[in-house]
Amino acid sequence: MKIAVLGGDGFVGWPTSLHLSDLGHEVHIIDNLSRRWIDAELGVQSLTPMDSIQERTRIWKQETGNTIHFHLIDIAEDYQVFKNWLSANRPDAIIHFAEQRAAPYSMKSDQHKNYTVNNNVNGTHHLLNAMVELDLDAHLVHLGTMGVYGYSTVGAAIPEGYLNVGIDTMAGETVRQEILYPANPGSIYHMTKCLDQLLFQFYAKNDALRITDLHQGIVWGTHTDQTRRHDQLINRFDYDGDYGTVLNRFLIQAAIDYPLTVHGTGGQTRAFIHIQDSVRCIELALKSAPKRGDRVKVFNQMTETHRVRDLAEMISKMTGAKIAWLPNPRKEAPENDLVVENKQFLDLGLNPTTLEEGLLSEVVDVAKKFAYRVDRSRVPAVSAWTKDIAEGVERDPEHPRLRSVS
Amino acid sequence: MKIAVLGGDGFVGWPTSLHLSDLGHEVHIIDNLSRRWIDAELGVQSLTPMDSIQERTRIWKQETGNTIHFHLIDIAEDYQVFKNWLSANRPDAIIHFAEQRAAPYSMKSDQHKNYTVNNNVNGTHHLLNAMVELDLDAHLVHLGTMGVYGYSTVGAAIPEGYLNVGIDTMAGETVRQEILYPANPGSIYHMTKCLDQLLFQFYAKNDALRITDLHQGIVWGTHTDQTRRHDQLINRFDYDGDYGTVLNRFLIQAAIDYPLTVHGTGGQTRAFIHIQDSVRCIELALKSAPKRGDRVKVFNQMTETHRVRDLAEMISKMTGAKIAWLPNPRKEAPENDLVVENKQFLDLGLNPTTLEEGLLSEVVDVAKKFAYRVDRSRVPAVSAWTKDIAEGVERDPEHPRLRSVS
Ligand SMILES: NC(=O)c1ccc[n+]([C@@H]2O[C@H](COP(=O)([O-])OP(=O)(O)OC[C@H]3O[C@@H](n4cnc5c(N)ncnc54)[C@H](O)[C@@H]3O)[C@@H](O)[C@H]2O)c1
Ligand SMILES: NC(=O)c1ccc[n+]([C@@H]2O[C@H](COP(=O)([O-])OP(=O)(O)OC[C@H]3O[C@@H](n4cnc5c(N)ncnc54)[C@H](O)[C@@H]3O)[C@@H](O)[C@H]2O)c1
Repeated sequence: MKIAVLGGDGFVGWPTSLHLSDLGHEVHIIDNLSRRWIDAELGVQSLTPMDSIQERTRIWKQETGNTIHFHLIDIAEDYQVFKNWLSANRPDAIIHFAEQRAAPYSMKSDQHKNYTVNNNVNGTHHLLNAMVELDLDAHLVHLGTMGVYGYSTVGAAIPEGYLNVGIDTMAGETVRQEILYPANPGSIYHMTKCLDQLLFQFYAKNDALRITDLHQGIVWGTHTDQTRRHDQLINRFDYDGDYGTVLNRFLIQAAIDYPLTVHGTGGQTRAFIHIQDSVRCIELALKSAPKRGDRVKVFNQMTETHRVRDLAEMISKMTGAKIAWLPNPRKEAPENDLVVENKQFLDLGLNPTTLEEGLLSEVVDVAKKFAYRVDRSRVPAVSAWTKDIAEGVERDPEHPRLRSVS
Repeated sequence: MKIAVLGGDGFVGWPTSLHLSDLGHEVHIIDNLSRRWIDAELGVQSLTPMDSIQERTRIWKQETGNTIHFHLIDIAEDYQVFKNWLSANRPDAIIHFAEQRAAPYSMKSDQHKNYTVNNNVNGTHHLLNAMVELDLDAHLVHLGTMGVYGYSTVGAAIPEGYLNVGIDTMAGETVRQEILYPANPGSIYHMTKCLDQLLFQFYAKNDALRITDLHQGIVWGTHTDQTRRHDQLINRFDYDGDYGTVLNRFLIQAAIDYPLTVHGTGGQTRAFIHIQDSVRCIELALKSAPKRGDRVKVFNQMTETHRVRDLAEMISKMTGAKIAWLPNPRKEAPENDLVVENKQFLDLGLNPTTLEEGLLSEVVDVAKKFAYRVDRSRVPAVSAWTKDIAEGVERDPEHPRLRSVS
């Protein structure tokens, strides 16, 4: 298959491109390298020494003989260029990673909010729009997030995209209907993924595009079978306050003998998946494409859930690191349960790597190995979710959205 | 109150501005005049001879002594200019009409789809974002559309924004919950209004913005108490295939002895409201603002529903015009029922003008009076919803989204 990987220079996109190239597919990475620019903006860098995309693809060719093509295109800003590329290349499948993906970055300032909305919504819409315009019947696989569910339920397991509800009719009956799970995003970034969902729903219905949306948990782990083949194929590892996920940040903290910073009670439960499983899920999703006319196919791409404090304790136990309890800069419920359905990928043969078994290698082979590169000042989280939180204003616990009048 | 009317040069925005000015409010119109540019692009014009916004506000001042300020700002393109204006003026209320509002125009080409998404999503988001950034606690009143409900129900009346559903828990109970009515938009334009809804939900929740969303039906009628005061205050009347609503197009067809063109069976039911009632609803909504911390307040801003063919018959009876039955260029169910709740505005004192009583005046005082200005070639509808419809490809009736294989 000819596969376009939008955002193929990123954390998930790069190992996915290697994995698909290894399977014999013709891989074309399309990326505007904005993520590298954001590293420059924030003055942060990947813990792992990461080469340029041109250099990485050169090494891959040298090691395997396989070519991965790279095209510098901004899918949100250059509609015509992107459309022309699709028209000339007509890929069989398109994997769409090309979005601004950090919730804290999306909340940093009004400029960052605008950037995130504009980049993510226009990028996704340009893609859908061009596919229709070009009559391009490619299978579109998009990376969404578990965060569209808002981590809040009424005690029902989180289904794979669609919720079965009962609606009372005027005739006094109750009709069952499957609806897109009601969106409850917790940040501007997550909100753009909810907007994406509506775009997908519309284009699947109106134009019969074939779309799969992968609601992914937090991806952890650095190496895959392919990135291991050469030092210069190594994947990025973000640990700064914006792009570093909770687990990466714990790993780094442990490696530099900094206490593990748990925000709030650490009672938020999150869903996780190892990078190796993530690329494998994408392979599986590609093999089980929806048919023209089907509704959007949604998978929950996660393999286990953990409370943040349990993660901290797991790593503390492995490394001896201390735990520090801090106020929460995010606006979210302090404690939540999370039961997530993920039967579809398991049925397709996914065999998960658990945190329990993979974490130690991350500590030793990645965090400790590259600890000398850590910028200690980048370790705390900085973006505040609201002006009140930014200003440290006390909130009325009964009405957490209001300033308390004292 | 100091009120900013975004899109105040438009069909609903202009009479709203006059109405609010008449009530003694300080009105500031913000508009980029894009709608006038679109008239130029399409080579169409309002049936009624419509003056420039500068001239119209000059006449209003001359007739009433009231100043309506006009500011040429593009809220989707010029975030900084718009934010600076809000910061310098800090209005008490903001009424947001400033969107590309024609479904057919939004489906014309890939460029028109991109324009509509970009203009509407970024415009709305810039406004919300700037309000938070400036700590501006203004009441935001947005004009949404009944089209977000998708004109499809399971036999339940369309509630005012929120649907009460039953969700089955893991414990085997059924929990009742009010959710935002599941979006089912029928065009790119309608989809942008669904995206708006999620933006509002997020900013109401995260930043306690006070937001009212008016899900409006098709607005009909030309004159209000204020536009009647001087010929040059007259409102616009669109009748072209993109911006002309079904009723306006029937009126024009009748006035020029063209048959009333009904698409499909004419069995689609639509919701309507007279322009005089629309401006009154906005006044009522302003008076009943949500409190900080409340969820988005949604009103259904409509007063009656009619099937398209019944409208055609009503006008045919009044004028003697014939009815012509044509294929439907829209992708929609051929027949639908529509029962809409609108108790909130009625409770606040709205006293509707019905089509039955107001239609004749539209025929005589508007359509017939200005019939000499009609460009007959602009009367049929042109934008097709999908490539197949555009190309006249036969569809498989069982799978209407697929081309039939013959
Ligand atoms: N990393 C995670 O834990 C995680 C979890 C859930 C979902 N996801 C989703 O998976 C996808 C990939 O995540 P990631 O961690 O690899 O992110 P990343 O930031 O490392 O990679 C995204 C890539 O997209 C590119 N990009 C962004 N905007 C672009 C544009 N307009 N045009 C072209 N390229 C553009 C960036 O330059 C970057 O290389 C994202 O959509 C993200 O939301 C990631
Ligand atoms: N007319 C109807 O029947 C109807 C029905 C339901 C909902 N609505 C909604 O009510 C609102 C007003 O409708 P209308 O019929 O008056 O439309 P309109 O096109 O006549 O007016 C919209 C105005 O907004 C301005 N505008 C658009 N984009 C802008 C931008 N980026 N910056 C500044 N100004 C901008 C246009 O120049 C125009 O003057 C729309 O949001 C529409 O979706 C209208």
